[in-house]
Amino acid sequence: MPTPTTDVDLALAAELAQQLRVDSIRSSTSAGSGHPTSSMSAADLLAVLVGRHLRYDWDDPGHAANDHLIFSKGHASPLLYSVYKAVGVVSDEELMTGYRRFGSRLEGHPTPVLPWVDVATGSLGQGLPDAVGVALAGKYLDELPYRVWTLCGDSEMAEGSIWEALDKASYYKLANLIAIVDVNRLGQRGPTDLGWDVDTYAARAAAFGARVFVIDGHDVAAIDQALAQAGDLSGDQPSVIVARTRKGRGFSEVEDREDWHGKPLPEHMAERALVELGGERHLLVRGPRPPEATKARPAAGGAEVKLPGYERGQKVATRKAYGDALAALGVRPDVVAMDGEVSNSTFADEFAKAYPERYFEMFIAEQQLIAAAVGVGVRGYRPFASTFAAFFTRAYDFIRMAAISRASICLAGSHAGVEIGADGPSQMALEDLAMLRAVHGSTVLYPSDATSAAALVLAMADREGISYMRTTRGAYPVLYDSAEAFPVGGSKVLRQTDADQVTLIGAGVTLHECLAAADALAGDGISARVIDLYSVKPADTATLTAAAAATGGRLVVAEDHHPEGGVGAAVLDALTGAGRVDLAVAHLAVREMPGSGTPKELLDAAGISASHIADAARGLLA
Amino acid sequence: MPTPTTDVDLALAAELAQQLRVDSIRSSTSAGSGHPTSSMSAADLLAVLVGRHLRYDWDDPGHAANDHLIFSKGHASPLLYSVYKAVGVVSDEELMTGYRRFGSRLEGHPTPVLPWVDVATGSLGQGLPDAVGVALAGKYLDELPYRVWTLCGDSEMAEGSIWEALDKASYYKLANLIAIVDVNRLGQRGPTDLGWDVDTYAARAAAFGARVFVIDGHDVAAIDQALAQAGDLSGDQPSVIVARTRKGRGFSEVEDREDWHGKPLPEHMAERALVELGGERHLLVRGPRPPEATKARPAAGGAEVKLPGYERGQKVATRKAYGDALAALGVRPDVVAMDGEVSNSTFADEFAKAYPERYFEMFIAEQQLIAAAVGVGVRGYRPFASTFAAFFTRAYDFIRMAAISRASICLAGSHAGVEIGADGPSQMALEDLAMLRAVHGSTVLYPSDATSAAALVLAMADREGISYMRTTRGAYPVLYDSAEAFPVGGSKVLRQTDADQVTLIGAGVTLHECLAAADALAGDGISARVIDLYSVKPADTATLTAAAAATGGRLVVAEDHHPEGGVGAAVLDALTGAGRVDLAVAHLAVREMPGSGTPKELLDAAGISASHIADAARGLLA
Repeated sequence: MPTPTTDVDLALAAELAQQLRVDSIRSSTSAGSGHPTSSMSAADLLAVLVGRHLRYDWDDPGHAANDHLIFSKGHASPLLYSVYKAVGVVSDEELMTGYRRFGSRLEGHPTPVLPWVDVATGSLGQGLPDAVGVALAGKYLDELPYRVWTLCGDSEMAEGSIWEALDKASYYKLANLIAIVDVNRLGQRGPTDLGWDVDTYAARAAAFGARVFVIDGHDVAAIDQALAQAGDLSGDQPSVIVARTRKGRGFSEVEDREDWHGKPLPEHMAERALVELGGERHLLVRGPRPPEATKARPAAGGAEVKLPGYERGQKVATRKAYGDALAALGVRPDVVAMDGEVSNSTFADEFAKAYPERYFEMFIAEQQLIAAAVGVGVRGYRPFASTFAAFFTRAYDFIRMAAISRASICLAGSHAGVEIGADGPSQMALEDLAMLRAVHGSTVLYPSDATSAAALVLAMADREGISYMRTTRGAYPVLYDSAEAFPVGGSKVLRQTDADQVTLIGAGVTLHECLAAADALAGDGISARVIDLYSVKPADTATLTAAAAATGGRLVVAEDHHPEGGVGAAVLDALTGAGRVDLAVAHLAVREMPGSGTPKELLDAAGISASHIADAARGLLA
Repeated sequence: MPTPTTDVDLALAAELAQQLRVDSIRSSTSAGSGHPTSSMSAADLLAVLVGRHLRYDWDDPGHAANDHLIFSKGHASPLLYSVYKAVGVVSDEELMTGYRRFGSRLEGHPTPVLPWVDVATGSLGQGLPDAVGVALAGKYLDELPYRVWTLCGDSEMAEGSIWEALDKASYYKLANLIAIVDVNRLGQRGPTDLGWDVDTYAARAAAFGARVFVIDGHDVAAIDQALAQAGDLSGDQPSVIVARTRKGRGFSEVEDREDWHGKPLPEHMAERALVELGGERHLLVRGPRPPEATKARPAAGGAEVKLPGYERGQKVATRKAYGDALAALGVRPDVVAMDGEVSNSTFADEFAKAYPERYFEMFIAEQQLIAAAVGVGVRGYRPFASTFAAFFTRAYDFIRMAAISRASICLAGSHAGVEIGADGPSQMALEDLAMLRAVHGSTVLYPSDATSAAALVLAMADREGISYMRTTRGAYPVLYDSAEAFPVGGSKVLRQTDADQVTLIGAGVTLHECLAAADALAGDGISARVIDLYSVKPADTATLTAAAAATGGRLVVAEDHHPEGGVGAAVLDALTGAGRVDLAVAHLAVREMPGSGTPKELLDAAGISASHIADAARGLLA
């Protein structure tokens, strides 16, 4: 590689901006798709940032003191990849032949398959919340002087998650967070709701606690000054740079014109654009280097975790076991916890009390809760995020994107199902298992007792991808000794004889109902196998298949969840995925809209209590 | 009923507030659960509002000119139900024996099983967005002078959805929307992030375009003045009343104390509280009546809809057919459309051009998009809301709550699955079918051609509950004549002989792959039945069961979705729900994380293209 220019003055930055525009056009035209005009509006901002302010060792993306650069407007990927060319980590050839092509790492929207990308973006309004998580880690966990620079689009300022992010950024005094808002006035189908009303953007950001800089986003000197001030870590406020820009800046045929969102220039237009922009350039630049890292990234594991122990028969809620186990996990310095203002219900408060320096209260902002988890995960921490299981639905887009970010995060949702009782359906998670199972690479756990819950919390801490544990509000008898192992992907057969006629499958609260049903059936002379399917995904195909084979294919599955996508679906997927099956299935689930009541009344009304399970088994044998 | 007092002066309002506190305590203590302290902070606000400002005919909740009263802080249900007692529509006995009890309409959080409740609340940050929808209807559709009064908690101001709501309320100049924020400083587990910093709340609301009133929420005169000014419809801004209050106000043992969230008073404390509050009262009051309604609520249906016609073999994207059919539906005056700033992709812009007065641009704020649909639905309109299918995940909590609200709304998600191509995984809906199937009472449709898509849009318009249509980005051949019927719950058998050996099941883009696979198999002498499962929920059990029986239980299901909870799960649920089954299933779905590429490359890489379907069929026959 030729020697890069490391002393980037403003004149060179302006040249660099033109190169970024040219390369954004070239790459997207060659690909036949992409967002050149959304890239061109922010080219001056990025040229000055990367050339003069971003402290980054491009040869060592893992350098602990590197600044972070997050494109919250992920559709401006041509600009980001053009930056990578300008700093010499992506070749012009790769840019021109890889962008948006099958098998290439230069995907349509950035993902961490690239070593310089922290998080996947492309669902708007997520990059800034993720950046808040990275900045939390920088200030409170790493205690390193890196900054988290985030490029936002103006359209995405309409997403509530942006305001959750700024609220938390100011609450936690994140001077290391800088949002650069590219106010190019135009969204996909026309003007944004605020257009070029930069004063309103500024007033909103200020009201949410930010230092605000309003600048002309094409004036490199103004950009330089704002970035210098915003990057100063001595204050206690996040910064928001509101940059007035023009979409498609630099090519008169598209500049500030509607109907050019997300469209590559046809080749003949691209040729004219390159002429107007001064032609191809191959500048190679490097900005400032990071300081020495005074602290290494955290190492996972290490310390021995002593899990809480419970007596068999003792009544303990699995949510309590979650809190106990999480607090025990705290001996691992990489473990971090956060909660959505219900830590006294989820029992995350046990961790908060023991390790306040590694606990973050995210208040009632579930999108930011997940984003904070993803963000601290970027820095190598292992986050556990908890709230009522029902309210993870608020953050489904963030969970989905976390999977694309290749994040490893642990989620715990309490108060699941009709079992919660009097609070009524708004507080009952009845879709969470379906939602989490459908996430790529996820793990879904639903323990029925405290021993298994605690053991599975420990297992989650080393699991890749999105791990979810569903916990139960009420206290139920401990079923297992502390010595039992609960591998992810396993199950427990709690009742079994050679003469079993039917298999009862439950998880969480319904497992206790299955056990009671088996007792009732035994009174009728019916021998029932009972399986605790604590690992809903992956499910224990071997045990399920053996049980189906042993009991004439007769299965009763009971779950405190809507019928779709939960435990029943997991059982059917496992069984049918293993070859030909002969099945007679009774699937008991919550099929009517519940109201308030006692847990017992509601389990019974939903048809998932012991008597219904026993009746269903009798029906299969009739 | 005794004659209610209709001339409620401020002294009486103060008395009424004490009654509301007393009844909030009595009802929650009798139930053994509930949120009395969160009710007591807002009692003065509600007493003045209901006694002197809310124009409501309590004998006719359907009165078209009634004001609306929405408890965004739904956990303050004891206060709401105590209001209902005070106006004489709920008896003291019902309040004391029904609240939070099994089978009662006085659920833990309000739902529209009560005739005076518009929307279910209890998931915080949703009532105000819903109220924006009602206010949109009031100003632009009904053109009636009702106001939408919304009680918000301070904790829920941390939800981004609140700011999406205020942004849209000011954009649409909704002077008929009044948010009353009960700033009692304390959340569930401790102080809120802003505490009593009413100035910051005020600055934020003002920056988001509201008229702001900061008051002492226990000063009935100040409340009265603010409500009078806020209720004035002559301006063009929404109003936000920031009311500084004390949680548990009126009972010194709990007032402004932590650890009293969501806890009923034990009986001995309740007795002392009643003494301090001046004892039980049984005031019966009525506030102002609504004006005469100058316009009736819209009637559904009526006009004859002429659907677009397509030629068989013509290549048309189903998203285009959605737009065509939606525009055709516009002859029905109850049909309203809205979109999340991608109407030129979803083709909702066809409706927007034809019926701009019934189209609402919600910009990139998917939570508010759903809430606006729910809100206009409250007023009897039939909303169609569209965005990229992937981005409905952003609003899952709102969709879940819409079902509890008994809302009938129609959703259309475009750009589903890996079929979208170069944009990459952030834009690919791969969880949407699982997410929507798991919603109570939902309908999930996934047409494969333009004819069926258009017909199903028409069917959605009269369907109860949450209806969802998944549409495809690319253009594929029209398969059906305009005369074909596509009942919800049906399917189409496209290839069938008496000698079929295997059944291929697809929906949307994979149906075309199934047809190509059947052709390839025919070349091998293998006869394959092909089913278009356009109705994913409810699924056509009879046709699936017959096909399984006819083809030796050999089924290949191919879907452009993650393996969990989608078409495959629908097929297994349908078949196993109908009795004993003998099945050999090959389930082709998107099992690895996709990147960018052409649709063809990505369908093939995911293993859901014709060659993979044919291979899977051969495998089942081997």
